[in-house]
Amino acid sequence: MQRYFVSEQQMSLENVLLLGDDANHITRVMRMAEGDEILCCDGNGRTARCKIVSLAKEEVSATVVQWLTEEKELPIQVTIAQGLPKGDKLETIVQKGTELGAHAFLPFSSSRCIVKWDEKKGKKKVERLEKIAKEAAEQSHRQVIPTIEPPISFKQLLAKAKQFKYKMVAYEEEAKAGEKQQLAQLLTTMDAAQEMLCVIGPEGGLSSEEASQLQEAGFLLCGLGPRILRTETASTYVLAALSYHFELTR
Amino acid sequence: MQRYFVSEQQMSLENVLLLGDDANHITRVMRMAEGDEILCCDGNGRTARCKIVSLAKEEVSATVVQWLTEEKELPIQVTIAQGLPKGDKLETIVQKGTELGAHAFLPFSSSRCIVKWDEKKGKKKVERLEKIAKEAAEQSHRQVIPTIEPPISFKQLLAKAKQFKYKMVAYEEEAKAGEKQQLAQLLTTMDAAQEMLCVIGPEGGLSSEEASQLQEAGFLLCGLGPRILRTETASTYVLAALSYHFELTR
Repeated sequence: MQRYFVSEQQMSLENVLLLGDDANHITRVMRMAEGDEILCCDGNGRTARCKIVSLAKEEVSATVVQWLTEEKELPIQVTIAQGLPKGDKLETIVQKGTELGAHAFLPFSSSRCIVKWDEKKGKKKVERLEKIAKEAAEQSHRQVIPTIEPPISFKQLLAKAKQFKYKMVAYEEEAKAGEKQQLAQLLTTMDAAQEMLCVIGPEGGLSSEEASQLQEAGFLLCGLGPRILRTETASTYVLAALSYHFELTR
Repeated sequence: MQRYFVSEQQMSLENVLLLGDDANHITRVMRMAEGDEILCCDGNGRTARCKIVSLAKEEVSATVVQWLTEEKELPIQVTIAQGLPKGDKLETIVQKGTELGAHAFLPFSSSRCIVKWDEKKGKKKVERLEKIAKEAAEQSHRQVIPTIEPPISFKQLLAKAKQFKYKMVAYEEEAKAGEKQQLAQLLTTMDAAQEMLCVIGPEGGLSSEEASQLQEAGFLLCGLGPRILRTETASTYVLAALSYHFELTR
């Protein structure tokens, strides 16, 4: 059944109002009619099966048939702090990371980032990433849309990291040196509902100085197996490993 | 250090000859000079550190400095049987799957495949995928280039599956039904150096009849967590879970 995220204001205990792109998707793309059913999520984890009662071009009304108890969210709330990558890779990272259950994305710039964040275009870019996250959350049947945070500097990242008890950085040099223990050890110390900050460097990786600063700030330097992963693959590895560990082996 | 795969004929115990694209990459892209070092892999798992002794546009010679003992390959040899996806997704699947350690890729067509394999263009397409696999294997520091097999029918896939003792299919309906045990249970029964066949459906998924036929052929129907993954994300999940299980928790 097709799934739509709506704001809390659009959704009461009995009724849902779908607007704009969502209404358009229902009428034009899915070509639904009165009586057809959809799933509506308020983005805070509440999902209802709803029946369409009226359709207009920019506004679709539905009534709640049944509130559902679902458990689609990764038990650990992971924030992916991603070194700004080239081209449209950040879009791929947000799309795949959303499918795999990430809780938030926090782009950051570091010494080896080739890309500079354009403040002027920045707001539009964040909006585009939010749209990608919303669509991927709907497609993957999630109950929550991940947050896209505006990019910060490496220094701001270190400050922000203080909010997190559990934090790791995927570090290529550790992988090359054969580090194989840290990630699994970290996960065994964690329980469901805890938060984790996962730092992934940009294409050129993190400098050894940046890695040291993260380590001093309490990050575990983790290898992700003996192969060297591209920056856009590292977050998918971590999220899949977390899902396997917390959702499939427990 | 830059890594190049060469054929066995190009590599003796003492010398290596790099040709064509590789020679071009060394001279034009990397702008290397005599005395610079590279890593050469024969694709059968043997890697040597080599020193360049002469450079020409289409031919670079190097001498072996040291044979290396590396262990970069996933302990389980996984063949990803991928339902033919739309657009250039097969390229993404081969690139990411190679980084994550896949042993071979076997595209297949099934009832819900929208894409038809064009026999005329097919050979060129396989060659393109082989080039993507080679480059991804070099970039990710692998010792073996995954094989790209020409596409087969679903019926041929069932016949081919008889060669494999361990086989699984990522099945969306199982994920929706909350199946969470099969993949982890399968992995705990496996040992290093064993082979596994992993079937991933195309965008529209596998039909329930196809899933039944696979189950009858000895496949385990596995859920990959409660979220619904896109076809190109499913193989990355399985490979990352395998790496986590066999490389990071042992």
